[in-house]
Amino acid sequence: MPEFLFNTLIIWGVGLMGGSLARALRHVCSAGEIIGVERTHERAVRVCELGIVDRAVALTDQAALGGAVAAADLIVLAAPVGQSADLLTRIAPHLNGCACVTDVGSTKTASIVAARAILADRIGQFVPAHPIAGGALSGPDAALDDLYAGCNVILCPLPENSAAAIARIAQMWRAVGARVHTLTPEQHDAIFASVSHLPHVLAFALFEHLLTSGEVTLKRNFAGRGFQDFTRIAASNPEMWRDICLTNRSALMRELNAYQAVLERLRAALNAEDGAALEALFTRAQQARLAWDAPEKFLGGLESHVKAVCTDD
Amino acid sequence: MPEFLFNTLIIWGVGLMGGSLARALRHVCSAGEIIGVERTHERAVRVCELGIVDRAVALTDQAALGGAVAAADLIVLAAPVGQSADLLTRIAPHLNGCACVTDVGSTKTASIVAARAILADRIGQFVPAHPIAGGALSGPDAALDDLYAGCNVILCPLPENSAAAIARIAQMWRAVGARVHTLTPEQHDAIFASVSHLPHVLAFALFEHLLTSGEVTLKRNFAGRGFQDFTRIAASNPEMWRDICLTNRSALMRELNAYQAVLERLRAALNAEDGAALEALFTRAQQARLAWDAPEKFLGGLESHVKAVCTDD
Repeated sequence: MPEFLFNTLIIWGVGLMGGSLARALRHVCSAGEIIGVERTHERAVRVCELGIVDRAVALTDQAALGGAVAAADLIVLAAPVGQSADLLTRIAPHLNGCACVTDVGSTKTASIVAARAILADRIGQFVPAHPIAGGALSGPDAALDDLYAGCNVILCPLPENSAAAIARIAQMWRAVGARVHTLTPEQHDAIFASVSHLPHVLAFALFEHLLTSGEVTLKRNFAGRGFQDFTRIAASNPEMWRDICLTNRSALMRELNAYQAVLERLRAALNAEDGAALEALFTRAQQARLAWDAPEKFLGGLESHVKAVCTDD
Repeated sequence: MPEFLFNTLIIWGVGLMGGSLARALRHVCSAGEIIGVERTHERAVRVCELGIVDRAVALTDQAALGGAVAAADLIVLAAPVGQSADLLTRIAPHLNGCACVTDVGSTKTASIVAARAILADRIGQFVPAHPIAGGALSGPDAALDDLYAGCNVILCPLPENSAAAIARIAQMWRAVGARVHTLTPEQHDAIFASVSHLPHVLAFALFEHLLTSGEVTLKRNFAGRGFQDFTRIAASNPEMWRDICLTNRSALMRELNAYQAVLERLRAALNAEDGAALEALFTRAQQARLAWDAPEKFLGGLESHVKAVCTDD
């Protein structure tokens, strides 16, 4: 149990991610004030009603916002990543020299570029982070006490970060039950383009396709559990995913290109009625997917050279 | 509870689907013999050991097989659909005039074409069916007592089927807890190309892509629950899915073409950094996916003209 995490914490964006962090921190750390920042007065009122934060400030109340930022020793950016530059621009004039700023964004390189431009020689105060958690539902009402229990958090520390600043953010995440790992921002963005951003885009695309394909009622009546699971992530927050796509565009384009090439190979096999090629591809995929849950059968040694990069401490 | 379902039932292919049907029928109907047919002697022994069937015959034991078919009053084809023609060819010489033949195949038009060619003027004895059930795991060890409890079964009756034959197959499925519906074979194959066959192909393709994209260990370590759910169906039986693709090729190609067109639109929006287009597409998909679980918000009236086709009785 940590002795000290913060005196004044700002959670900027009290949705699923930010709201769940506030809830979890309140459980492990009764001291210190938690201030929510929300886009509108109505949302600020709502997150107070839900008891997620001690008080909330609307973005429009610039005087209150400046005062809160000046007093904060820990600021967590938890709005969609496309807003990072705007948020940092609002924070920069008031940021005190002892404060740590971190984020929960699903993409890292674009926010770091923005932070460098805006914070300039104070960039060392910004420790980029990404908790691997979430759910199909979004907003403050979806926030949970235990969203981060047992989850992985990736830190992408900058050369300018002090060891103390990195340790503080790691300590906060461990306090809410998360396991902390370290990747470079480029590694992070490539890995999540592959295992998160591409699947989300594919699931959104499937529903877009479905809507224009006719017989929607019959399809809904007869779709099985596989379809339910496959498309669950299509219910994710559109604004958040727009920003993820835009801020990780080049890595996502590489994934999309490679994926479309596989689809083309598959379509060629189907067109040629090449059952052997289809079965070979499906078998590789099946074996890999089964081994995904039991990697000792499959991944041992395959990619062991990259293991050194990942430090779970 | 039904009074009579069969005297001698053959389940041809005692895997997840056939094995679960045998298990469920044994629960509701203690009378009557259940005979399994398996590809090899070893598999025949295995399904007996598991207690799924009363006895099992290997495909190689032609004399025993002919005798079993001649005695059977109900035969369920539960091997991958690509084998339907071969199975019917083996069955035809021994089939008695009172027997009903049905199947559990995920595609219908191709099997019906094969059945017409092979059974000729006895085609009325074949009642095509498709229970919407399954799981990522396959084989007799995956068979469950309650796989079909509460599931939907689609019958695709032929003009040659007698009302009594259709009623018998419907009665069998209701006896194991399923809800019985009726579609034409063409409707069936178009609908399942969309909500089942396309998603499976996309999931297999994602794993194929992943295997060649590097950093597999890191990707596995950090993939979240969304990825797990999205890719679960990639663990499905490759042979079964090869056959589904080949026997529903034209409907699947139409789905794949339309889906790839959506992906191209999405890629163009991403390439142009068109956040508004991305958000609009993601929002349509999100709203539809949320409404998928609560259709009163969304589907009412949209496709109500096709509802009449679907009869749940």
